[in-house]
Amino acid sequence: MAHLLYASCPLNISSCSKNSPNSLKKCSSLLPMSLTVQTSVKPFKSLPLNRKNAHKLLSVRATTLQQPTTKTGSGSDQTSGQESRPTRVMVIGGDGYCGWATSLHLSNKNYEVAIVDNLVRRHFDHQLGLDSLTPISSIHDRIRRWRSLTEKDISLYIGDVCDFEFLSEAFTSFKPDAVVHFGEQRSAPYSMIDRSRAIYTQQNNVLGTLNVLFAIKEYSEDCHLVKLGTMGEYGTPNIDIEEGYITITHNGRTDTLPYPKQASSFYHLSKVHDSNNIAFTCKAWGIRATDLNQGVVYGVRTDETEMHEELYNRFDYDGVFGTALNRFCVQAAVGHPLTVYGKGGQTRGYLDIRDTVQCVELAIANPAKRGEFRVFNQFTEQFSVNQLASLVTKAGEKLGIDVQTISVPNPRVEADEHYYNAKHTKLIELGLEPHLLSDSLLDSLLNFAVQFKDRVDTKQIMPSVSWRKIGVKPKTVSA
Amino acid sequence: MAHLLYASCPLNISSCSKNSPNSLKKCSSLLPMSLTVQTSVKPFKSLPLNRKNAHKLLSVRATTLQQPTTKTGSGSDQTSGQESRPTRVMVIGGDGYCGWATSLHLSNKNYEVAIVDNLVRRHFDHQLGLDSLTPISSIHDRIRRWRSLTEKDISLYIGDVCDFEFLSEAFTSFKPDAVVHFGEQRSAPYSMIDRSRAIYTQQNNVLGTLNVLFAIKEYSEDCHLVKLGTMGEYGTPNIDIEEGYITITHNGRTDTLPYPKQASSFYHLSKVHDSNNIAFTCKAWGIRATDLNQGVVYGVRTDETEMHEELYNRFDYDGVFGTALNRFCVQAAVGHPLTVYGKGGQTRGYLDIRDTVQCVELAIANPAKRGEFRVFNQFTEQFSVNQLASLVTKAGEKLGIDVQTISVPNPRVEADEHYYNAKHTKLIELGLEPHLLSDSLLDSLLNFAVQFKDRVDTKQIMPSVSWRKIGVKPKTVSA
Repeated sequence: MAHLLYASCPLNISSCSKNSPNSLKKCSSLLPMSLTVQTSVKPFKSLPLNRKNAHKLLSVRATTLQQPTTKTGSGSDQTSGQESRPTRVMVIGGDGYCGWATSLHLSNKNYEVAIVDNLVRRHFDHQLGLDSLTPISSIHDRIRRWRSLTEKDISLYIGDVCDFEFLSEAFTSFKPDAVVHFGEQRSAPYSMIDRSRAIYTQQNNVLGTLNVLFAIKEYSEDCHLVKLGTMGEYGTPNIDIEEGYITITHNGRTDTLPYPKQASSFYHLSKVHDSNNIAFTCKAWGIRATDLNQGVVYGVRTDETEMHEELYNRFDYDGVFGTALNRFCVQAAVGHPLTVYGKGGQTRGYLDIRDTVQCVELAIANPAKRGEFRVFNQFTEQFSVNQLASLVTKAGEKLGIDVQTISVPNPRVEADEHYYNAKHTKLIELGLEPHLLSDSLLDSLLNFAVQFKDRVDTKQIMPSVSWRKIGVKPKTVSA
Repeated sequence: MAHLLYASCPLNISSCSKNSPNSLKKCSSLLPMSLTVQTSVKPFKSLPLNRKNAHKLLSVRATTLQQPTTKTGSGSDQTSGQESRPTRVMVIGGDGYCGWATSLHLSNKNYEVAIVDNLVRRHFDHQLGLDSLTPISSIHDRIRRWRSLTEKDISLYIGDVCDFEFLSEAFTSFKPDAVVHFGEQRSAPYSMIDRSRAIYTQQNNVLGTLNVLFAIKEYSEDCHLVKLGTMGEYGTPNIDIEEGYITITHNGRTDTLPYPKQASSFYHLSKVHDSNNIAFTCKAWGIRATDLNQGVVYGVRTDETEMHEELYNRFDYDGVFGTALNRFCVQAAVGHPLTVYGKGGQTRGYLDIRDTVQCVELAIANPAKRGEFRVFNQFTEQFSVNQLASLVTKAGEKLGIDVQTISVPNPRVEADEHYYNAKHTKLIELGLEPHLLSDSLLDSLLNFAVQFKDRVDTKQIMPSVSWRKIGVKPKTVSA
């Protein structure tokens, strides 16, 4: 399977018009590890704005004006008081759920943004018969629409970071000051479908990240790596979770060491491997890196994605890519019982996607020092699965929806009742202003799910992947 | 490069005679990920023993009779008092330095042994222009010779564990009760030569081990995995190093967690990744596993390898595969100054190769429970590099060799003065009887190096790989 997923192809978007999509050169062959060249999109200056677009453009500008005055950046280095070039940020995986929202947010904040993506997340949907709740436009249409609304360019490099020739070309061409790396297979259930997906996940994630580290060392050694990790790296220890490091006194001696990791899927393990690899390169090569151990993200709208339907973000509710709160809202919207795995005591950190984009910008605006491996726990609140089910049930009542909850056998191997207390102060100290999960937000999220409920495929809702039953034979999840 | 290293080919050894080596079918093509079938070697029963062989056979039998009466195994399950089939052990990487000595030791102890090896370690020597101090026979001649001396069969599967089709065939054919996994790229400097070797090391080691775990789950779920890790996974923390786990009290709560890891090369990191992956599968699938965090191995002779020159083990002294004490002995033998990296305060655990084979057998004879991830620190003594240099200098004096020591810039990124105190009691509790580094042993090792000194290529002695200078361009280490 892996070689199919490496496929990348040269693209050349030469037309600015939404009406001539066929001007895209099609990929003529799917060669493993083929070289992919830069795709540049800069054709919209003369595009007339219709009324709708004009409105949206105004709302962008309003957003841009509302920059916090704290430690967030503007995308330009203005410390000298003189005009200078904007900070150049490469967003690997910029077509995905968090990556797309982040790319738009950074572009809106006047960073110079390039998206690097092999579009494999869309390919997974095709292979597994899944689809986003929200209709999502092609990356090319997304970028064109963004340009037409804001007059801001986002560069596009279609290809795979596991293909070092491609990655080298992207690096030497774009010359990033910071790299935000979302470009990994990001589903724990996906990594537990079968052997080939387990292997793919660790190969893609670990070797892709190694390539990014080598690219930074070779081409842009001052570049700041902002890497998406996961709170799942820590597991559920019976002591407080710190941010990356813990000071241990043992037999009368003391040291501050990496916090012990207990990941519980091949996906989560790939992030642990990444963290260890990155920490080493910070020490050995002086790489500057921030590891964002992110909690479970919910929500779909950001100031930027809601500007136009062609900018809509993806919203996964299925048993493979869907995450707890988003999935519950969709279940409630279609009258499906909320599926609590096991006892429902599983407690995790959560955050609104608007905080994801804020946190990434804070990390970029306040970079790690040369040689520093900095770890932030990126979430704003803790909930148990049962607490989330209860909140969605209450929100449903307000909308006149009768929400039921069922317990299903836990397909994962995890404690479903446990102690959990994780620190998350470092991003707050940098200026994060959290969007907490208020009743009104949950109402809005549930309403959003109701709006799109006709697109729900209820066959995709139940968990279909078992941690214990994974085998060596390639598996087709749904048919 | 990786695809070349995956090459494996079907072999069929149909002749018993050393005099007809051409009966080996040659590999006709080097296809990546090609299927490799079992090679079975059982042709020697009627081979007449010459006097030399007869003598050697006697010494084998004497060795076999000298089995400790403690907890080591006999290769047969005799707890019921009845005859039963011998324990079947698959030794992955059984053609390598530790793997070959272990295979012979286990065979000698009446375990039924199969070697699985892609012979890539020999390929590395060809690629890098290196050679073992000792002349080593082909794996086919080694196995034939062992059979002729002892009437014991060792099965041979030539292929790559990264090729799951091959590995499945080996598993379903041999049906192992235990798998000893040495089959990894095992040199830290090799992993730091260039990007492609870094990628190769993590890909080969991590994905190969994942395949082994899947093969155990699918085909032989009660099989005990004995995995070679390294003491280098721990790094050099400023607190005592425990065996795999540490009990931490933090903010008034207590948990026993995986000991924090701080590996310092892409090779050492690959072992950390393996440990994390294996621990997860023990929990999720009930795999039984022992992780042997081995120290630096010295020596070359075991009771079995010294039986015949065709059984000699490899002895690496070069800057890529050579390890500290063995390399110092060769340097002393040829009148080259001992090369101490930096201040020489680097302290590590060391063990005699005769203890390596003993430890592996102890682990097999006393298997981990289902679901248990057991970690043993496998070394017998700690030395700093300066202490080793001093010991070799003294041994040289006794032999009339004037040994000099020079400090060379440390090519690695590591502390060269640090606290180091690592526990290593679990294997002792199982019955390990260490061969400590006495003066007489060191004299013997130095004498051995002198015996082969005409084979030394002094160009290979100095470190040629820099942790900081590693780049993305493929590198030829020596020419």
